[in-house]
Amino acid sequence: MYAITIPEPGGPEALQWAEVPDAVPGEGEVLVEVAASAVNRADLLQRQGFYNPPPGASPYPGLECSGRISALGPGVSGWSVGDEVCALLAGGGYAEQVAVPAGQLLPVPEGVGLVEAAALPEVVCTVWSNVFMVAHLRPGETLLVHGGASGIGTMAIQLAKAVGARVAVTAGGKEKLERCAELGADILIDYREQDFVEELRAATDGAGADVILDIMGAKYLDRNIKALAVNGRLAIIGLQGGVKGEIDLNALLRKRAAVTATSLRARPLGEKAAIVAAVREHVWPLVAAGRVRPVVDRQLPMSSAAQGHRVLEESGHVGKVLLTV
Amino acid sequence: MYAITIPEPGGPEALQWAEVPDAVPGEGEVLVEVAASAVNRADLLQRQGFYNPPPGASPYPGLECSGRISALGPGVSGWSVGDEVCALLAGGGYAEQVAVPAGQLLPVPEGVGLVEAAALPEVVCTVWSNVFMVAHLRPGETLLVHGGASGIGTMAIQLAKAVGARVAVTAGGKEKLERCAELGADILIDYREQDFVEELRAATDGAGADVILDIMGAKYLDRNIKALAVNGRLAIIGLQGGVKGEIDLNALLRKRAAVTATSLRARPLGEKAAIVAAVREHVWPLVAAGRVRPVVDRQLPMSSAAQGHRVLEESGHVGKVLLTV
Repeated sequence: MYAITIPEPGGPEALQWAEVPDAVPGEGEVLVEVAASAVNRADLLQRQGFYNPPPGASPYPGLECSGRISALGPGVSGWSVGDEVCALLAGGGYAEQVAVPAGQLLPVPEGVGLVEAAALPEVVCTVWSNVFMVAHLRPGETLLVHGGASGIGTMAIQLAKAVGARVAVTAGGKEKLERCAELGADILIDYREQDFVEELRAATDGAGADVILDIMGAKYLDRNIKALAVNGRLAIIGLQGGVKGEIDLNALLRKRAAVTATSLRARPLGEKAAIVAAVREHVWPLVAAGRVRPVVDRQLPMSSAAQGHRVLEESGHVGKVLLTV
Repeated sequence: MYAITIPEPGGPEALQWAEVPDAVPGEGEVLVEVAASAVNRADLLQRQGFYNPPPGASPYPGLECSGRISALGPGVSGWSVGDEVCALLAGGGYAEQVAVPAGQLLPVPEGVGLVEAAALPEVVCTVWSNVFMVAHLRPGETLLVHGGASGIGTMAIQLAKAVGARVAVTAGGKEKLERCAELGADILIDYREQDFVEELRAATDGAGADVILDIMGAKYLDRNIKALAVNGRLAIIGLQGGVKGEIDLNALLRKRAAVTATSLRARPLGEKAAIVAAVREHVWPLVAAGRVRPVVDRQLPMSSAAQGHRVLEESGHVGKVLLTV
């Protein structure tokens, strides 16, 4: 088969479409003939040599895919050859085939195309596990989403609105904020020109956000805690603004607040399967009903993965960048 | 009535047993004839002028008491004059009488004396709300308790053991650690001579603590995160080691860990009542069965409250210091 390989870590040009050994499904895995994968920020780090795949995972990048099941490994039940699926992966999505633990498979939801379905697994699982399973966002609460126009952001807006929460977003520029508003965002903050702590306070009668979904880490830590409401929960899923920062524990204590940080990729199979099962139960019906939709910025051929990486590095996109086989 | 007043913030001698206006129960409150109160670290801060009572609370110190109900305010049901109770307070326990919101009352548990019952409300509510309601300690998990011989510590050990968890404690010196062991602590760490991160690692095959109950704040923050297991929860309830510290968010993310900070006193009535109700449901049967006991270091007359404050400042105690009327 062909896959995107990284002979030497580096810029986008490090990604090479090359012939590699076929993928082989192990115990409890299925083989998926990939229709599409999608670009995640973690792929950019892996390309630069900063984020090695966990032990046992495929060496090729790609944390999600859609496609058709072409073979079943031993001990798999409930799935058949020919099934149209999408899947959460520990790696290997940038390839013609990938072996997937059965617990990480989801059926392509009703009303969503096979290619388009590749836009769903990573963002849906990340948002559901953090905003709902960890931070327990409730109807009537306010969610602040940093990077509202990103893949994660566009899904967080839709899911939070679908459960009856109020949504504030930060994004860079009017155009992105308009797209966020179309998806349902209520409070629009241009981080280039506005202070999100002040804007959020003004928009919530001083209360702040009950839940914040953050991708910036250290750079936003102090301001995020300032922006939290009493009993607020800060869920960190990215560290684009640095790793180490000062935290004011007294501010946290006065608000009885929580700071969590998670990633999906390193979780053991059982935890991933539990998240995927929760997504199938709670999110898939919303997708089938058309209340939550994959947001696709563009589709590129997988052999042009380098171009997809450049799009994310320039942050000009809204939603997901797909790579099709 | 008489109460401990603080005419001027300062050392223990600032506490004055003086005649003050009688307490009057408001809507939804009862009047309690106080048998005993207990000394909490927050009282020391209040005495020094650093921790003012929340709006509406009594100006006198004292976050818990036991005694007999002597009058019912309007709108109280389920309690009668003469009932023996203990109570969580927003202040005012260092007095002959105190007005208490009915949702913060607990019956004196079976098998516990009226005076002794004053040792329970603050520690039981703090431990239950943090270790169980926030951090969800589960049977088979490991809890690390800093200050294992303190009032909070002695209760945390007992409650965690009662639900089937493993308990590690830090304390200063052999004598205190022996008392912790008598209460059920499995892993004993002398913080004066040992590094708790290393000791905990050695005792848990490298896994670390699933939950940490911390009173040190900034001083222990980095080491607490190092000592956490994957999916670990750090629950901060005191800031004796400082307020601001550096946090390594990548370490938090790799462990998918959570940091929470809370205090009881500032919570609204509804939250306090929910905690008290949970304590009555889950902890009171354990106390009645003799599996969890109040741990009393000594009893002093309330007019000698200054002496009680000195005991806590010197950290020579094990369990609670009671002040009797």
